[in-house]
Amino acid sequence: MIIIGELINGTRKSIKAAIESRDAEFIANLAQRQVEAGADYIDCNPGTVGEREVEDLKWLVATVQEAVDAPLSLDTPNADALASALDVYGQQQPPIINSITLETERLEALLPIVSGGQVRVIALALDDAGMPSAPGQREDIALRLVQALAEEGIADEDIFVDPVIPPLSTDPSCGACILGAIAGIREGAPDCHITCGLSNISYGLPNRGLLNRTFLVQAVAHGLDSAILDPLDRELMQTVYAAEALAGRDEWCAGYIAAHREGKLD
Amino acid sequence: MIIIGELINGTRKSIKAAIESRDAEFIANLAQRQVEAGADYIDCNPGTVGEREVEDLKWLVATVQEAVDAPLSLDTPNADALASALDVYGQQQPPIINSITLETERLEALLPIVSGGQVRVIALALDDAGMPSAPGQREDIALRLVQALAEEGIADEDIFVDPVIPPLSTDPSCGACILGAIAGIREGAPDCHITCGLSNISYGLPNRGLLNRTFLVQAVAHGLDSAILDPLDRELMQTVYAAEALAGRDEWCAGYIAAHREGKLD
Repeated sequence: MIIIGELINGTRKSIKAAIESRDAEFIANLAQRQVEAGADYIDCNPGTVGEREVEDLKWLVATVQEAVDAPLSLDTPNADALASALDVYGQQQPPIINSITLETERLEALLPIVSGGQVRVIALALDDAGMPSAPGQREDIALRLVQALAEEGIADEDIFVDPVIPPLSTDPSCGACILGAIAGIREGAPDCHITCGLSNISYGLPNRGLLNRTFLVQAVAHGLDSAILDPLDRELMQTVYAAEALAGRDEWCAGYIAAHREGKLD
Repeated sequence: MIIIGELINGTRKSIKAAIESRDAEFIANLAQRQVEAGADYIDCNPGTVGEREVEDLKWLVATVQEAVDAPLSLDTPNADALASALDVYGQQQPPIINSITLETERLEALLPIVSGGQVRVIALALDDAGMPSAPGQREDIALRLVQALAEEGIADEDIFVDPVIPPLSTDPSCGACILGAIAGIREGAPDCHITCGLSNISYGLPNRGLLNRTFLVQAVAHGLDSAILDPLDRELMQTVYAAEALAGRDEWCAGYIAAHREGKLD
């Protein structure tokens, strides 16, 4: 399971304040805690726009990579911000560009940045028609986007397909529909990773953590092998260990038992 | 989700003592607590054999049906104990016979008891060859058993197919194999219920509750609609609510939201 830690996001109030005041210690600490909790990538989302976003993302990248060795996920559709962040990017492993879509404008702006194999990329199942809803639509858009990326020389194993999770509260049938999409993408693009922004599923409902981790388990059973989530949610991370063991991705449950011995499952 | 409460089981030490001393209050209380926590059936397993089992099961049935209105699951392969328990059975809804298999001897002994449509039955995917292991074997045995039961006039909706859950600790690939079996049975016998003895999955591993509830979520996503479990396990029952909502079996998440309002999800 490839965990992308979501907490450094400027749309959250405390993060917005830390970015505005250039509080490097706060950001560094949050990056370190996510890595210690099991994050493989640290997402950096400045939550701003325009020229401000260019400066903010550059500062976030510099600050986080000073604090941790983990690679980063650069979370913006702003091509200028991405180009400038890549200029200062210094981690050993390549970053993830979060994210590209089949929307004409965004695709044209970002393809030059992701082509060439120096970065990995999250490929959102969105096109110019907006949020997919009909059964089969997510798989169709996702596989066309994978094809477009392949034509730019991006290897399947560097693509993280995101089927786009809608809130269960607005569409009670979406759980089954999304699981079908995950299974369909896994079948159609077996070498791609499949990820998602997990917490969207529970938007507008109570006890969101319970729904988030329950949905994660179902998604893993259908082929999801990555997620953008809060790694400091202890129960969620415990669920990741159990889901991996049950999915046969943890030989002799060694990872599960090790997590137990480290006290992570209590 | 049809929940069969598993706690009145004479192989557990405290229950064994209560059965031996005919402690009706202890048994009645445990039956009531399981119903209050959401059990639809109360399983009664005397944990004894022979003539002793006949008497013990009869006493359990009389004691539990005095305490709750819920129907019972009569948990023994002993035809004499079942016949005698059915003689005293007085609940409004029919009991579940737990369980029949394709094993020649057991099938011949129990078919006369289950035929005629007065009872429901758990159909274990076991035949004379013992524990199924090859992919497809569980589905094959289960569907042949459903066919044998249909020939005796038992309606699909009165059959609870149990694919037989092995411990993940002895077969790390069994998680995926069992989920495939559940999906296959759901496809081959769409009107049957599918149940399982949930806690088998975690036998021999630490933090069993975490594995049990994680597996339950995966199984529900593949077609499981019943389980034999501990309804007093609060986190497990919370997971049931979330899994049902995500599986689209809880219109507008009404059951989930009601459970939240009753404080069951905290």
